[in-house]
Amino acid sequence: MSFQKLDELGHRLEALEHALAILGADEAIHMAVGGGEKRAEAMGTLAGMYHRQASASEIAGWIDAAEREDLDEEQAAAVREFKRHYVNLTCLPAEFVERQTNTRMRCEQLWRDLRAKNDWAGFLPALEGVIALAREEAAMRAQVLGLGLYDSMIEQYDPGNRTADIAPVFDTLKTFLKDFVPEALAVQAERLAKRPLKPLSGVYPVDRQRELGLAMMAAVGFDLSHGSLSVSHHPFCGGVPSDVRITTRYRTTEFLSSLMGVLHETGHALYEQNLPKKWSHWPLGKARGMAVHESQSLFVEKQLGRNPAFWQWALPVVDKYLGESWSMDDIIPHVHRVERGLIRVDADEVTYPLHVILRFELEQDLIQGRLQPVDLPEAWDAKMREYLGLSTIDNPADGPMQDVHWASGAFGYFPSYTLGAMMAAQQWAALTKEYPAADRDIARGEFAAINGWRRDKIWSQASRWSTPELLERATGEKLNADHFIGHIRARYGAV
Amino acid sequence: MSFQKLDELGHRLEALEHALAILGADEAIHMAVGGGEKRAEAMGTLAGMYHRQASASEIAGWIDAAEREDLDEEQAAAVREFKRHYVNLTCLPAEFVERQTNTRMRCEQLWRDLRAKNDWAGFLPALEGVIALAREEAAMRAQVLGLGLYDSMIEQYDPGNRTADIAPVFDTLKTFLKDFVPEALAVQAERLAKRPLKPLSGVYPVDRQRELGLAMMAAVGFDLSHGSLSVSHHPFCGGVPSDVRITTRYRTTEFLSSLMGVLHETGHALYEQNLPKKWSHWPLGKARGMAVHESQSLFVEKQLGRNPAFWQWALPVVDKYLGESWSMDDIIPHVHRVERGLIRVDADEVTYPLHVILRFELEQDLIQGRLQPVDLPEAWDAKMREYLGLSTIDNPADGPMQDVHWASGAFGYFPSYTLGAMMAAQQWAALTKEYPAADRDIARGEFAAINGWRRDKIWSQASRWSTPELLERATGEKLNADHFIGHIRARYGAV
Repeated sequence: MSFQKLDELGHRLEALEHALAILGADEAIHMAVGGGEKRAEAMGTLAGMYHRQASASEIAGWIDAAEREDLDEEQAAAVREFKRHYVNLTCLPAEFVERQTNTRMRCEQLWRDLRAKNDWAGFLPALEGVIALAREEAAMRAQVLGLGLYDSMIEQYDPGNRTADIAPVFDTLKTFLKDFVPEALAVQAERLAKRPLKPLSGVYPVDRQRELGLAMMAAVGFDLSHGSLSVSHHPFCGGVPSDVRITTRYRTTEFLSSLMGVLHETGHALYEQNLPKKWSHWPLGKARGMAVHESQSLFVEKQLGRNPAFWQWALPVVDKYLGESWSMDDIIPHVHRVERGLIRVDADEVTYPLHVILRFELEQDLIQGRLQPVDLPEAWDAKMREYLGLSTIDNPADGPMQDVHWASGAFGYFPSYTLGAMMAAQQWAALTKEYPAADRDIARGEFAAINGWRRDKIWSQASRWSTPELLERATGEKLNADHFIGHIRARYGAV
Repeated sequence: MSFQKLDELGHRLEALEHALAILGADEAIHMAVGGGEKRAEAMGTLAGMYHRQASASEIAGWIDAAEREDLDEEQAAAVREFKRHYVNLTCLPAEFVERQTNTRMRCEQLWRDLRAKNDWAGFLPALEGVIALAREEAAMRAQVLGLGLYDSMIEQYDPGNRTADIAPVFDTLKTFLKDFVPEALAVQAERLAKRPLKPLSGVYPVDRQRELGLAMMAAVGFDLSHGSLSVSHHPFCGGVPSDVRITTRYRTTEFLSSLMGVLHETGHALYEQNLPKKWSHWPLGKARGMAVHESQSLFVEKQLGRNPAFWQWALPVVDKYLGESWSMDDIIPHVHRVERGLIRVDADEVTYPLHVILRFELEQDLIQGRLQPVDLPEAWDAKMREYLGLSTIDNPADGPMQDVHWASGAFGYFPSYTLGAMMAAQQWAALTKEYPAADRDIARGEFAAINGWRRDKIWSQASRWSTPELLERATGEKLNADHFIGHIRARYGAV
């Protein structure tokens, strides 16, 4: 039976994924500094084994045959995802993938060096090489998948998402935010004039912040018997669903940035920990994609963790672990701080989507050949001035050299961040419509009912539906910017 | 070129070994408690991939062809070890290995449960199953390797070691120790009558003990950029040569047992860290075997760490980290404590070999069919009374159920412990003959010259020679009990 062969392949691939995930987390958390070279060699070899086994030509025949076998609904769904996975993995020739990997890695290394030196001219030729190959890649993917060039790139990250659906929603959001950012800043200035900001400062030992983080993680639903919290230079959520490794970093002079980071990664972790265990060795059992994953982390960070109701419960907990009594009036201005800035990763939830929409628009033009890499600094600056009133023309390090994504060839990934933010707001709206007591629960530190809704609608569904189908089944409607706009307006607008 | 194929195979196997080693260390040190089931599944699958790739039938042809190729001396040595590895791995049919693995795992699980209950009768049938298969295994190995039954089992752990060479040396040692143990105990009693033992007690915070351990590790030669110290339930040395993970456990009421454990594992780690890097993906590049490995850990623990000269240097270091001023006269009686006991792992260096020789004699009889499992409690008790004057007849949990080795089918492994102790003493004798200033160095905390000798004679040789050849090349003579006897007599005998 061919389904059986796919099932066994799934177990082999799961073991290799398990090794790669734990080795990756170990490298960032525990590895001795001198262990990197051999670790890279081992992971490269294991990734090669994974790729060879996952893209073996006989799998095409197993999938064809399995599609004609008498399968139950779950198995049929499993075959669909095996196929999607296989097609996405095999639509590029091995020779091309190798050439592209080398080009990307060289460009990434150069980026690390030249971004620090603000050297756009030195970086441009390498980026041009990556973009030329990304255009080739998009053409090959588009042909196999029967999609548009940019849609075929998005498809790797968020199956089913299409530019034709996203672009109008992003346009609505952009139009709103261009006006709303000044409004939010004015509202904030007015409030701060009445009550000056109490500085986020103090002395917070790492072990107490860690205990606070663990207490918050557990309260929000993280299963500490299937995961842990460590320290790494860049916070992440890694490991495997049975043992999710999240990390943070601490500043001993303030506690809020680490705690918010822990809540964000806890959101990713909850999704992983609550995926259906019996599907864990099938592509069907994996998280749906980057936008849905981001919706889960942002849900915990923004819908829960930056909700004033959350802080009614959280302030006494902070006091218990850190011995620091903040008032709601003093902490909320920090939790809801809005600031226009050049850097996407430092942006707040009001300005963040404008950073993403700028990239979404530019990378479509890059992939479709309407924009040349050499013209990026001007194009970036023009949009930055229009959307946020800031210029990067003399500062490409904080302009088109800001992120590693393009250097590493990840075109089509950026929209996931803002799609995630919009989907989180839309999920919150649907949840609170069904369960109006959500805010009351949060204020009491009770998350069971909220997590029950999310488990039912999102986590248990894994990769059963395309990204837009999953959202529509969970919330009863297609992607709709109104929920995010309503959320932002309520939290940051004039009363 | 066939050598090239072996070389590439070596890289693939090294990557899988790397993953298995790090996953194994991670499981003991960092894994969340609920992660065990999936970890076992992943490691089982990866071990299966390793076994299939390492035992593939085409490798026999590559080895044959490579043996006829024009190779340099290193490559020829590499082929010899590829062959030894391959033959040892393929001399049992896959069906047999699977049956044996299941039988062993059931017996090990039963052992964990029934040893605690002292239930020999319940354990016996499972052990009989394991021993029956071990006899079959020995017969198959012996036929392929052209060795005796028990020698073919030893060959897995210490290539080249033969019962005909070991048994007379063990007999000499046994004859000596049966008389010497009472003498050493009398000497100790006399000393303690003059100066009573100062109890090993105090309050030693874990973080200070850890800092002390790290300082000692670094001083003795451990490269902290290629390894680390963690905590686990059972201390071990794991990981990979580029990133060696050693562990210990702490008692906050005394510091000596953890420190001695750290020195022991550091001895294993020094061997791994100093293996030749360019051979790391060949079997040739691995540590020679269990006896040589144990000689390296015991060298650091006993020849260095229990040497009074070591404590001249170490006491001020202990004082610095723990704020505890011990005198030589107070610490040495603990470092050199001798005690007759039932338990091998708790034994001191004087009585330990008698525990091993007892098992060495019994397991030869078991494998050769001269002793039946049902008669083990009586046979064990008789030897225990003869060698150490203790009885286990009513206490099989501390008799033949004491160790996991037989339950897990590891016959031929026990001799490695005492061979290691003898080889360490023999290496020390050879080293001090060439370099009489060794004790002076140790008293100053200088280990570079001593490690230079060991790197040259042992570590850099990896698997280039059989176990007895390696010892003879390093020390100028075959295994000779006199060195260990001389060491024990000098340290524990009447002056």
